[in-house]
Amino acid sequence: MSINIAILGYGTVASGLPIMINQQKKQMTQFVGEEIKISKVLVRQKNTFNENAAEQFGFTLVDNIDSIVNDPTIQIVVELMGRIDPAKSYLMKILRAKKHLVTANKDLIALHGQELEKCAKENNVGLYYEAAVAGGIPILRTLASAYASDHITKLLGILNGTSNFMLTKMFEENWSYDQALSKAQELGYAESDPTNDVEGIDAAYKLAILCQFAFGMRIPFNEISHQGIPSITKEDVSVARQLGYVIKLVGHIEEGNNGLEAEVVPTFISVKHPLASVDDVMNAIFIESDGIGNAMYYGAGAGQMPTATSVLSDIMTIAKQVHNHLPVDHFNRLDQTIVSGIESQTEVKKQYYFAFETPDLSGQFMKIASWFKVEGISFEQILQEKGTNQLARVVIITHEMSKKQVEQLKKHINENEDIQLLNVFNVIEA
Amino acid sequence: MSINIAILGYGTVASGLPIMINQQKKQMTQFVGEEIKISKVLVRQKNTFNENAAEQFGFTLVDNIDSIVNDPTIQIVVELMGRIDPAKSYLMKILRAKKHLVTANKDLIALHGQELEKCAKENNVGLYYEAAVAGGIPILRTLASAYASDHITKLLGILNGTSNFMLTKMFEENWSYDQALSKAQELGYAESDPTNDVEGIDAAYKLAILCQFAFGMRIPFNEISHQGIPSITKEDVSVARQLGYVIKLVGHIEEGNNGLEAEVVPTFISVKHPLASVDDVMNAIFIESDGIGNAMYYGAGAGQMPTATSVLSDIMTIAKQVHNHLPVDHFNRLDQTIVSGIESQTEVKKQYYFAFETPDLSGQFMKIASWFKVEGISFEQILQEKGTNQLARVVIITHEMSKKQVEQLKKHINENEDIQLLNVFNVIEA
Repeated sequence: MSINIAILGYGTVASGLPIMINQQKKQMTQFVGEEIKISKVLVRQKNTFNENAAEQFGFTLVDNIDSIVNDPTIQIVVELMGRIDPAKSYLMKILRAKKHLVTANKDLIALHGQELEKCAKENNVGLYYEAAVAGGIPILRTLASAYASDHITKLLGILNGTSNFMLTKMFEENWSYDQALSKAQELGYAESDPTNDVEGIDAAYKLAILCQFAFGMRIPFNEISHQGIPSITKEDVSVARQLGYVIKLVGHIEEGNNGLEAEVVPTFISVKHPLASVDDVMNAIFIESDGIGNAMYYGAGAGQMPTATSVLSDIMTIAKQVHNHLPVDHFNRLDQTIVSGIESQTEVKKQYYFAFETPDLSGQFMKIASWFKVEGISFEQILQEKGTNQLARVVIITHEMSKKQVEQLKKHINENEDIQLLNVFNVIEA
Repeated sequence: MSINIAILGYGTVASGLPIMINQQKKQMTQFVGEEIKISKVLVRQKNTFNENAAEQFGFTLVDNIDSIVNDPTIQIVVELMGRIDPAKSYLMKILRAKKHLVTANKDLIALHGQELEKCAKENNVGLYYEAAVAGGIPILRTLASAYASDHITKLLGILNGTSNFMLTKMFEENWSYDQALSKAQELGYAESDPTNDVEGIDAAYKLAILCQFAFGMRIPFNEISHQGIPSITKEDVSVARQLGYVIKLVGHIEEGNNGLEAEVVPTFISVKHPLASVDDVMNAIFIESDGIGNAMYYGAGAGQMPTATSVLSDIMTIAKQVHNHLPVDHFNRLDQTIVSGIESQTEVKKQYYFAFETPDLSGQFMKIASWFKVEGISFEQILQEKGTNQLARVVIITHEMSKKQVEQLKKHINENEDIQLLNVFNVIEA
């Protein structure tokens, strides 16, 4: 006897699955209770690579989703095609055919997860997607189990390996943004159009999924603001180093009085904070909660083996329940299906980094300082440096302030022609 | 309807449970399917504190274990008494009465876990102990689920908060060992007899439990060697700082050709390694595996709320299965019950730190270097400093070498009267 699975797609991650299943067969069979067998793989077209694999591992290549949907021997389907179309329509068919589903498709889950989960529940099948967020980090199952009696107040995540690799190079090697991007593209970390990675869109997808597991709330994806890394200059990096920070692209969800605030934004992180040591393509999620307190989960964000291992954990969890004729648990057992927008008036307060460029004249700093004073915001650190062309650079690390206060400040600044606001980033102390 | 639990002991962690159960009632009930209710608490003697709690939270204080063992309405028992006696005999009674058990008692699990687990299996009840290792870090359930299809090759853990607090102070404030110990005792982190914490015994208990979950093997506790932190001097700290390391007490399990090597030992960790930023009383476990790759799990090692949250997660996991009339999963689903000693001939290779004191005469360094040359060991870094009283201090960071080679070296050193070996620690690069 065996539990038969089908895979949709045979790219990098998918092709790691039969290798791992072969290598860990004994351990997996002991866990599940019977063998897991890849029975069919859906490919757009056959080629030497997937035909050789089919022969070596004994599965059948198919090019029509219906030959999987209508196969009563297949109990679990693994979707590794990516993108929304045709993945979404395939997955709906599979769920309606009462087959359990495992996917690593974060775009699809972030945008259409609710519809898919509803369909899974109606058909009494499992829908698992641990690998959709931070590939090698078992963060979703951890949130759904270890935090089941806890109350999370803040979640900070370095969720995009490509941008983190670039920022690490900009920091450690003093590279410009463009140099870092070229290297990331050369190494295959960044696509020719890097928008999703560098603008924080990929991280925002992951943040939307994390929000459901950590706070039991669904945030519409378009309500998560995202600010990318292209505006980060060598001067920002140099200031960060001088003041004892690194710069990371951070996904940030925090509970305020009236709801959640969620954003992806370049962030100055104190070198003493555990997130500061998360370098290169690694990911990490830092969580603050009433019970567990501060915790961090660190690991690979992507890659063949880490992602395949996450996918296999989901398959095994489902397979074990199938083997024992038990109802399959919902993946997100904390889902309160509260459909909640983000409150614009949350009183979440954060520290900020402001970088200004001003004519190098006396009185300019006083002018800047006065805008902050009007809003009642005090400073933690100030740095003024001579720039080029008679310009000076003024950097301010503020004490805590609200988003509303930041908007007020920007108004003052915009009313003034000779002082330019170069960048506003978040700040996290240790 | 409710699931009734009893608690053995009403100390710091136990008294956090009713508070948390009250606060998170809605969320917990949704997860489990019905309410969890504390019905009885076993105390040695009644006092104002536990009597007030009994009245406030509506449970009954009892002073006889049999009133819990023989109560058919109690389904889950939570042991938070600590120590071996009488906890062990109580737990055997409870398991034989077919009640599920949750405990945070690491000494008991490390020393008698096998016997207790056998008894639990025979009686078809669950035995869960997430809080026994690294209080607030859900490491055991993560090893049992996310790593179910993976192959772990190395585990490094900062597992004792007290010694880590002391080392952080010795490093950041330049305190001596004695100063750090006084402060730890003053803050209640260290007991008046700090042996278990500072000698690595507490960490070795935890390492024994981690070994079962990470490698599916039981190591007899007395086969885990442990070296403590009292021998660490200000000079060691100063050298570490100069060469780019911090010093941590690390539990280390590594797979060699012929088995596992497990030890707790002071370790130079490169400041670029994620474990280097684990400061104060925090714990972390760093894992290397074929599938997930490098990962780290960071959080509080002890404390009322983190530990109580871990205990509650175990209770809820069991309670959910009880509510659904399902057989309760074994906590360690990977347990291969391979009873394996540690091979003395594992070819595990590590880098080491050697600190010598020699008369400040020419030729002394050559003599030391020659011993390493005989064993074929090369150096990564060397530092020679003038000491006091015509003595010099020689520090060597080696390339990788085996334990057997370390022993050979110590023989050469012992044969020589004027050169003293001050310390040998492990070294971990980033």
